[in-house]
Amino acid sequence: MSKAPPPVALVGAGPTGALLAILLKRRGSHVVVYEARPDPRRHPEESGRSINLALAARGIRALEQVGLLERLRGKLVPMRGRFVHPRDGRTALQPYGTRADETIHSISRATLGRLLLDVAVGEYGVDVRFEHRLDAIDWHAGHAVLRDPHDHPIEVPIRPLIACDGAGSRVRRSLADTRRIEVYEEALEHGYKELSIPAMTDGTAALPREALHVWPRGDHMLIALPNDDGSFTATLFLRRRGSPSFESLADRRAIATFFDEDFPDIAPRMPQRIADWCDRPVGFLGTVRAAPWYHRDQVVLVGDAAHAVVPFHGQGMNCCFEDCLALDACVAAYGDWESRFAAFYALRKPNADAIAAMSLENYEEMRAKVVDPRFQVQSALAHELERRLPDRFIPRYSMVMFHPEIPYQLAERRGRIQAGLLAALTADASSLADVDLDAAQRVVEAQLAPIAQDLSSVTKV
Amino acid sequence: MSKAPPPVALVGAGPTGALLAILLKRRGSHVVVYEARPDPRRHPEESGRSINLALAARGIRALEQVGLLERLRGKLVPMRGRFVHPRDGRTALQPYGTRADETIHSISRATLGRLLLDVAVGEYGVDVRFEHRLDAIDWHAGHAVLRDPHDHPIEVPIRPLIACDGAGSRVRRSLADTRRIEVYEEALEHGYKELSIPAMTDGTAALPREALHVWPRGDHMLIALPNDDGSFTATLFLRRRGSPSFESLADRRAIATFFDEDFPDIAPRMPQRIADWCDRPVGFLGTVRAAPWYHRDQVVLVGDAAHAVVPFHGQGMNCCFEDCLALDACVAAYGDWESRFAAFYALRKPNADAIAAMSLENYEEMRAKVVDPRFQVQSALAHELERRLPDRFIPRYSMVMFHPEIPYQLAERRGRIQAGLLAALTADASSLADVDLDAAQRVVEAQLAPIAQDLSSVTKV
Repeated sequence: MSKAPPPVALVGAGPTGALLAILLKRRGSHVVVYEARPDPRRHPEESGRSINLALAARGIRALEQVGLLERLRGKLVPMRGRFVHPRDGRTALQPYGTRADETIHSISRATLGRLLLDVAVGEYGVDVRFEHRLDAIDWHAGHAVLRDPHDHPIEVPIRPLIACDGAGSRVRRSLADTRRIEVYEEALEHGYKELSIPAMTDGTAALPREALHVWPRGDHMLIALPNDDGSFTATLFLRRRGSPSFESLADRRAIATFFDEDFPDIAPRMPQRIADWCDRPVGFLGTVRAAPWYHRDQVVLVGDAAHAVVPFHGQGMNCCFEDCLALDACVAAYGDWESRFAAFYALRKPNADAIAAMSLENYEEMRAKVVDPRFQVQSALAHELERRLPDRFIPRYSMVMFHPEIPYQLAERRGRIQAGLLAALTADASSLADVDLDAAQRVVEAQLAPIAQDLSSVTKV
Repeated sequence: MSKAPPPVALVGAGPTGALLAILLKRRGSHVVVYEARPDPRRHPEESGRSINLALAARGIRALEQVGLLERLRGKLVPMRGRFVHPRDGRTALQPYGTRADETIHSISRATLGRLLLDVAVGEYGVDVRFEHRLDAIDWHAGHAVLRDPHDHPIEVPIRPLIACDGAGSRVRRSLADTRRIEVYEEALEHGYKELSIPAMTDGTAALPREALHVWPRGDHMLIALPNDDGSFTATLFLRRRGSPSFESLADRRAIATFFDEDFPDIAPRMPQRIADWCDRPVGFLGTVRAAPWYHRDQVVLVGDAAHAVVPFHGQGMNCCFEDCLALDACVAAYGDWESRFAAFYALRKPNADAIAAMSLENYEEMRAKVVDPRFQVQSALAHELERRLPDRFIPRYSMVMFHPEIPYQLAERRGRIQAGLLAALTADASSLADVDLDAAQRVVEAQLAPIAQDLSSVTKV
């Protein structure tokens, strides 16, 4: 009789860690999950630190695979497009896609996290140890030291250790500090703050639901995503320093004036805006790049721990869930952990780099371009070209959000060519009526290979 | 007194291995180089297997750093552009750049290889052991087994082993077979054969020198690069199977007809064409992708061993030389080999992926697009835009060949946007006179960030 192998240690029981634990457990692995925070199912949710999540096709595909999508249905609020609130008050809905089913779904991180934990623990019997904080890793001895709820040290052998401990990953830091991997952290000059837009006293929503609301102000922006109770979770993105900035808006009067001047249509619907501002921290925004994401057969970084991105494409969680499916497939395909990690890294790294770049670019799009008439003509032309040539032209946003069969890497590559085409084809146009659509179609046919052809060249790698 | 560390074992004494050995030796490392073939300086050169090399700015920068460029001057033949030989006989020189110094340089691989070896051995005292063939690697014991010229096995400790053993790397194969890294090899449907165009009997060249000659035939092509003795080294790229192909052209009569029909202007200048065809092997063309390029502190893949590319951008050797500079910089920056390898991989992998993609795309450009009037208008517009906006628009070919300060990764990214712009701006133009240049300039200014701005966002990684 052979001895059972030691359990796989998974650090972090957020959505990524919980989903991965479910997948590994389903494959028969013995997994123990360690989470620094208390069980969120027994404690009131931490507020003020989290942007609502936008679940799109990539995330949905992952949740479907573990049979979770049905349980989420009632909690998801579909968003059909961006509802833009320019300074001049002329609001407009910019649809995300061309088809009715091309929507994304708003959900609070807390709701999704609790559901995944419920399923992991309740249905799959995953062993999750809350309030176990990673203290240090002894790479030579091959164990991690954690602190239990009584602050007693516990040695956990790393055979292997899977790190789903998020953008601020302590595991990644230990790997970087000991020069086992290379890590680059690129902070944005902007931070964010969560704000609330409660439902009206009669229970109705303060804004049209079924949309992601954006108040683009060039250098900064406010967004709001719907919740299932009629409220919205709003997020202000603003420079940390300069003017205006989180630093310059230092007293209640300055904050009040800032809201009244920049967001007059929504400020009255945010009764707690000054209190929220003062009580809640300024969140960090940045991109984390690492290479590689694993060390030997000991440890692998998954999700934000490996490749945190800025939130402006709404793909962070979707990308993390794709990671989970990929690592699960590599566990099935290879017999040893180092091979699994190498294969996982080779598959996912180019795609993580691509979504990181696209997420940064989307910030400019959301806070400035959406109110630029040139952007609107380009966007209209992109949708028209998709209608005419769906096998050749899909707007980049749609490839990322609605086409999980197109890897991020390919969406980025085709997206750049498309951006050049759209800019030049609409150079002198003030509306779609000014564009010679037949000529545009011919240019696309001459310039862009069919998507299937490009797919066959990237999916191998 | 501390014991001297064991020598670094470097496998492969081609141009990459020789250059890297020089750099490491200059840093004070003790390096021993093992090469399977006999010393090329004492043996007649192997012919029939090598395309001439095109040395461009990236390679030149590396050779300058070791003071080698001066010694090469007399051997380099500058090429100012592509000299295109269409079927209709209307030949034309398409300049590579817009400035007189934007040339690339033809050199035979053998000449460059011998020179680098001469310097490595003669000036730097590098210990090169020829006719030492890598037989196997015992990863657990931590040594490589080589065979000396008498076929006796020799154990070489790998602390570390640096593999510069080329596209068919045995070290890479061992890493892949033992699932230490992931390797993807993507063969092209085309192979190649080297052919000769000797100097005329009066010693003059059979073709205009100072150009890379191309006979684009859609599905296949012939190219010729000048040598310093008035001869040209020609290469035929052709499908392996199908019609016409290396398989279908099976007898002397079929081969003769193929040359007479497809290349009537040059066939008479290739008196050995039938003999060359029969005597010389069909070379392999393909792309090799690996992730990662190293294993622990034991081994690293450098150059073609890590990332062989197809030869159609003429960047293979240039990219390999950039690798050598990067690894040398990482050796200086970090104290242990695993950190050095991780940093080297993180720096170079995205750039290697980019040049691999661009090299594949250049094949279509060389064998088909160069005779397409649309390509010629786009190319003329690209050069015109560079003249007007050199800080914003540099043709992709020029970024790759003449701008070593722009990483391949950025050249690829900007190149795709530019491709879209050029295609749309020239959609209805049959010559540059039909293009509204001021409008094109405005589109570029609105769409493309200054290069310096993009550079600041990529060089960190």
